[in-house]
Amino acid sequence: MNRQWLYAKQPVGKIGRDSFEWAETAIPEPRAGEALVRTRMLSLDPANRAWMMGKTYRDALEPGQVMNGFAIGEVVESKAPGLAPGDIVEGDWGWQDYAALPAARLAKRTTEVPLELLVGPLSVTGLTAYFGLLEVGRPKPGDTVLVSAAAGAVGTMVGQIAKLSGCRVVGTAGGRDKCDWLVRELGFDAAIDYKAGGVRKAIAAGCPAGVDIYFDNTGGPVLDAALSLMNLRGRIVCCGNVSQYDVEKPAPGPMAVPGLVVTKRLRMEGFIVMDFYDRRAEAEVRLARWFADGKIKAVVDVLDGLEKAPEALIGLFDGSNRGKRAVRV
Amino acid sequence: MNRQWLYAKQPVGKIGRDSFEWAETAIPEPRAGEALVRTRMLSLDPANRAWMMGKTYRDALEPGQVMNGFAIGEVVESKAPGLAPGDIVEGDWGWQDYAALPAARLAKRTTEVPLELLVGPLSVTGLTAYFGLLEVGRPKPGDTVLVSAAAGAVGTMVGQIAKLSGCRVVGTAGGRDKCDWLVRELGFDAAIDYKAGGVRKAIAAGCPAGVDIYFDNTGGPVLDAALSLMNLRGRIVCCGNVSQYDVEKPAPGPMAVPGLVVTKRLRMEGFIVMDFYDRRAEAEVRLARWFADGKIKAVVDVLDGLEKAPEALIGLFDGSNRGKRAVRV
Repeated sequence: MNRQWLYAKQPVGKIGRDSFEWAETAIPEPRAGEALVRTRMLSLDPANRAWMMGKTYRDALEPGQVMNGFAIGEVVESKAPGLAPGDIVEGDWGWQDYAALPAARLAKRTTEVPLELLVGPLSVTGLTAYFGLLEVGRPKPGDTVLVSAAAGAVGTMVGQIAKLSGCRVVGTAGGRDKCDWLVRELGFDAAIDYKAGGVRKAIAAGCPAGVDIYFDNTGGPVLDAALSLMNLRGRIVCCGNVSQYDVEKPAPGPMAVPGLVVTKRLRMEGFIVMDFYDRRAEAEVRLARWFADGKIKAVVDVLDGLEKAPEALIGLFDGSNRGKRAVRV
Repeated sequence: MNRQWLYAKQPVGKIGRDSFEWAETAIPEPRAGEALVRTRMLSLDPANRAWMMGKTYRDALEPGQVMNGFAIGEVVESKAPGLAPGDIVEGDWGWQDYAALPAARLAKRTTEVPLELLVGPLSVTGLTAYFGLLEVGRPKPGDTVLVSAAAGAVGTMVGQIAKLSGCRVVGTAGGRDKCDWLVRELGFDAAIDYKAGGVRKAIAAGCPAGVDIYFDNTGGPVLDAALSLMNLRGRIVCCGNVSQYDVEKPAPGPMAVPGLVVTKRLRMEGFIVMDFYDRRAEAEVRLARWFADGKIKAVVDVLDGLEKAPEALIGLFDGSNRGKRAVRV
């Protein structure tokens, strides 16, 4: 039997359980050129919520489809060249126990690394942090790097890679506990609780030399504050807009655009991690070495059981996760 | 006697004559290291209005000062090394007949080119277009380039340089006459009257292959429309925000920032022409050759007499100018 979560209906405002519907169908038969994959780990990402609202860099989710999302699985049967039972693969087959997919939609991964690393820190979210910070932000030692959603999957990695790059690192997160944890466990120089109010003033205090790079996972008020605190020729790495994914009425755009972008000669640049996949292998080798040497920590927050997938996603917008959220299937 | 316009008070909303006050004082005496300059041509720029509202890349204008602005003048007396009577110089000494300035604040210009070229097309506004388009926008042949305030000093140059670069060029301007003129006289492929309404739809029709580079002189509704029409990996050259300089209540920020910046992987980048002044000579040689060969037209709109300076600036925000606005003194 193939258990599935279907995407049932478009949320209005905050997403709830009623956007998902449980289904049970037959296990698919792989056709020639396809492999049958058994899901081992689901990746939960704020982008999953954004996909519900329309076409982005990929097609919009359509109600009735199996809920989409990145996953790690094991090949159980193969009619695809180059894939054999026992292989570990990654792909976007969504929230279900099994999927039959052509080889082109499956990326073979190492079997020598725990699945907790493969589902994020050594995959989409780790690479997002790596390429976004190093290639789009281009930090220099001594730069001040501000990162929003710093306790999230991408933020925890951005902060640690920025520290390795010789930067002062300041993060924003929701709640004092998370902020203390960022400083104590992940080596952030300062962390600001955006829920406590006075976010601009607090960021200014944490960044006495201004902000050279703002790694923006959220948009919203932290972006507004960052714009006003950027140094000349600062870079804003536009990675996500999570403050706006789970709301009914989007916030107004940043007033400082384009005014301060001109006068401070800022560069605001968006990217999608897949843009850099031709250099993925090189980045993974480096990240794997940093994990192995204890230079950065992989933070993964795993829930057990496919039935937990909706609450795992909903919780991303309540700030209930630390680091990469995943569901073990 | 030295006739001057003083900056009298900060405007609220639309700028009027009451922001300026006429004064007559003695001609200053140059001290050692200074030259006495007789103003020949004033450059009127939308940025002059922005300087009234606060510190930008330069100090804010303060009421009581001589009104600032770039000017072209002739040295009439020199105690400065390297400057002699008859030399033509450029500097920011503002709206007055005479100024005594240290050599470091004066840039010597050729005497072989008409002052109409030196005041804009072969100076600040020409260089702004040249470096902004070519270095920040980085056009490729076949790109579609959209430019706002296309009939203005910078816009007329951006459009013509983009055509030389092999691009399709679409401009926005206020009024059908200006739009027709952009197409007929300056070779734009299409021009859109932003005052006629439906600006997004009109731009979309003029840019059937989308927009690769948007050269933003205005911010406001044209920026909003451009964001929604940008192609993947498009570039937005943030040069000015003229739609917001002369208003009491600024418009809300662009809603599509940062959302579309991420999903379309856009680069929005601000610049100030002075950032490129180390390469000024090279650019001037090229621009001068294009003018001499008739490859691009210099469009200069000259008013006669220092007394006209306030109305010349005020008119920039009524859209009364075509090309570079200057005042002959």
